[in-house]
This record gives sequence, C-alpha cells and structure tokens, in this order.
Amino acid sequence: MKASILFSGGKDSCLVAIILSKFFDIELVTTSFGVLDNWKQAKNIAKKLGFPFKVLKLDKKILEKALDQVIKDGFPNNGIKYIHHEALKELAMDSSIIADGVRRDDLVPVLSASEIRQMEDKYNIHFIQPLAGYSRKTVDLLVDQFFIIEEYKSSSDFIGAEYEFELKEMIKQKYSAEKNKEIFPANHTHSIVLEVKQDKL
Amino acid sequence: MKASILFSGGKDSCLVAIILSKFFDIELVTTSFGVLDNWKQAKNIAKKLGFPFKVLKLDKKILEKALDQVIKDGFPNNGIKYIHHEALKELAMDSSIIADGVRRDDLVPVLSASEIRQMEDKYNIHFIQPLAGYSRKTVDLLVDQFFIIEEYKSSSDFIGAEYEFELKEMIKQKYSAEKNKEIFPANHTHSIVLEVKQDKL
Repeated sequence: MKASILFSGGKDSCLVAIILSKFFDIELVTTSFGVLDNWKQAKNIAKKLGFPFKVLKLDKKILEKALDQVIKDGFPNNGIKYIHHEALKELAMDSSIIADGVRRDDLVPVLSASEIRQMEDKYNIHFIQPLAGYSRKTVDLLVDQFFIIEEYKSSSDFIGAEYEFELKEMIKQKYSAEKNKEIFPANHTHSIVLEVKQDKL
Repeated sequence: MKASILFSGGKDSCLVAIILSKFFDIELVTTSFGVLDNWKQAKNIAKKLGFPFKVLKLDKKILEKALDQVIKDGFPNNGIKYIHHEALKELAMDSSIIADGVRRDDLVPVLSASEIRQMEDKYNIHFIQPLAGYSRKTVDLLVDQFFIIEEYKSSSDFIGAEYEFELKEMIKQKYSAEKNKEIFPANHTHSIVLEVKQDKL
C-alpha cells in the first residue's frame, strides 16, 4: 500500500517517513506554487532517505488567497493553515493514505479533529498524523538517532520547502521584505535534514 | 534507550510496541492490582512479540477509589481514567520514556494536553502516545499487517488485561455481576492478539 507524506525535508516530515515506512510504500510529496524552486531541496533530501518523491503543483490562487488572509490578519497562522488544508485536499484526490508531520505541540498548521474526520469521510481516505502524540522534545530525541540536522530562525536567509517560503516571496514581491518582518515571528525555527545516518535506517 | 509501554495484549498496545521498537529498547508493562491473574495473558502475547515484559503492581487503594467513582458516576470513564493516570505516574518513576496506546478517537482513558505536559515536566520524562494521530480504521489497517486478532464485546465472558477487568471483578465481589451490566456499555469491544506474523516483524 502506498502512503503519501507531505514533505518539506525538515526533521518532522523525515521522521514521519521513517515511522510509516514500516507499514507502507512511502511517497514523499512537496507542494509548489511555482514561485520558488525550493522543492528541489526537498527532492535532494528525499533521495538521501531513499524514498520516491514528487512535486504536487498547487493553484497559485490558493497562495494569493492565503496572502490576503495573512495581510488582513497581520500574522501567518490562518493563511498557512488554509494552504495546508488545500494541499491535503489535493493529495487526498490522488492517494488513499496521506500523512503530515504535525506534532502534539504544533500550533500551525493544525486541522481540528472534526476537520480531519470530515476529510477522511469525504475523500474516503486514511489521514495519519504520526507525530501527533509526540512532543517537540521527544521528536528531537528520535531525530538524533537518524539524522544530522541544521536549524534556522525564520529571520535568517534560509529558504526551506515549507509553504511559508513561497508565501514570503509573494509578500516581498507585492509589498516588501520589511512587511515579512512585521508578519512572521522572528524566533520561529525551521529545520533541514543534512544527512541521514544510513546504518540506522 | 529503554521505553516502557503500558501493555494489555490488545491490538493497540501491540502496535505501539512495533512502532516504537524502531527507536527504543521496548519493555512491555502490564498493571495488576492482584485481583485477577489476567496479566498472564499479556505476558504470553509479549512473548510472541519478543519483547521483555514486566508486571507493575499497583496499590489496591487505587482500584477501590476508582470503584467508588464508577459507582457514583454510573459509568466507567472517570474511574478508568483515574487508574490510567495513577499507572502512568507509577511508571514515570521507573522509566524516562513511557507510552500508552491511546488512539485519536479514543474517549477513555485520555489525559488532556495539559495533564500530559504536567506529567512530563514533573517527572522529567518523555510521554509518547504513538497512535494519537491514527483513527481506529487506520489502526486496523496497520494491525492486519502484523497480527491475527480476536475481538470481544464487553458483555461477553472474555477477560483481558485492561484495567476494566479487575474493576469489574471488584464490583462483582462487592455488588453483583448485574451491577456491571448497568455500568459498562455492552457494545464496547476489546481485542486480543492471537498471533504475530513473525515474517513481518
């Protein structure tokens, strides 16, 4: 059975791949609105993990709607949640088992219990959140066993394959780089997996 | 690193053992108040899984307090939740990584997010709920890959190693078998793992 995992190349989605590979044929899926080529980075990490990879093209209108929301709110949570919801819907049309890397203490992007059930019923899929019962501290304990990672503050120049980065690029183009500093919390961290400890896989 | 899993021999806790065995040295722990010897059944299943097993003796006063709660309420949820909480506390004194088999759609025994964090902070442990992001339907999909199971209705004569069974025995002794029928929902199901598909481990 194939399971499709929304994949950024960060530590959480890499760990999800390791956990689910015990049960399923893994496919790693990175979304792209075509604004940046940050999906290439995710592709490289997928190769290190040894799992098939694909890019899921999303309609740029989704990004534009998220941008409007974020500008209106003055913070990114609802806009990113909206993108995540749309990405999952798109993925659910193509795969009967889908998963994301949301942790127990993640705030964004989190679907409510009823949104998750609705999605499962509507598309007749299994939606798995393998890290929903792990704290960040526990995820780090597991990550250390398998990966060498690097972490970056949101305020750095790092560009990852999360939704946030194409959103920021659009805001920069439409408004300014300064606008992003107002909207995105500077101390939020992103991680990227540099190496996979192959002997542990 | 050792991880201690609260273990009944049912499909959920067996699946937890499989998932966490990728990361930890597993120890399966079945609680007993000394009222029944139902832990022996869990021991047999632990042997089939091939993981170390131990019995965690709990003070009978916990069972008595749970019994009072259940009689007062007229339903078992709060009493069972109380036992689960006490069992986790006891386990946390002996092990720095503990886990249970609670699923996304489980109602009992579920600790709130703040109770979980409090416990982690107080005892300086990792508390993992590996199935918190899986529905019952998805758990069944995974279980099928590894186990042959049997399911029983609560109203049957089946005796498993869950807290419920020693609680029922105490109620039977102190009140009557009829009293249990009033309190416990007849259509609740318990599962037991009969065989482990060894080639899949």
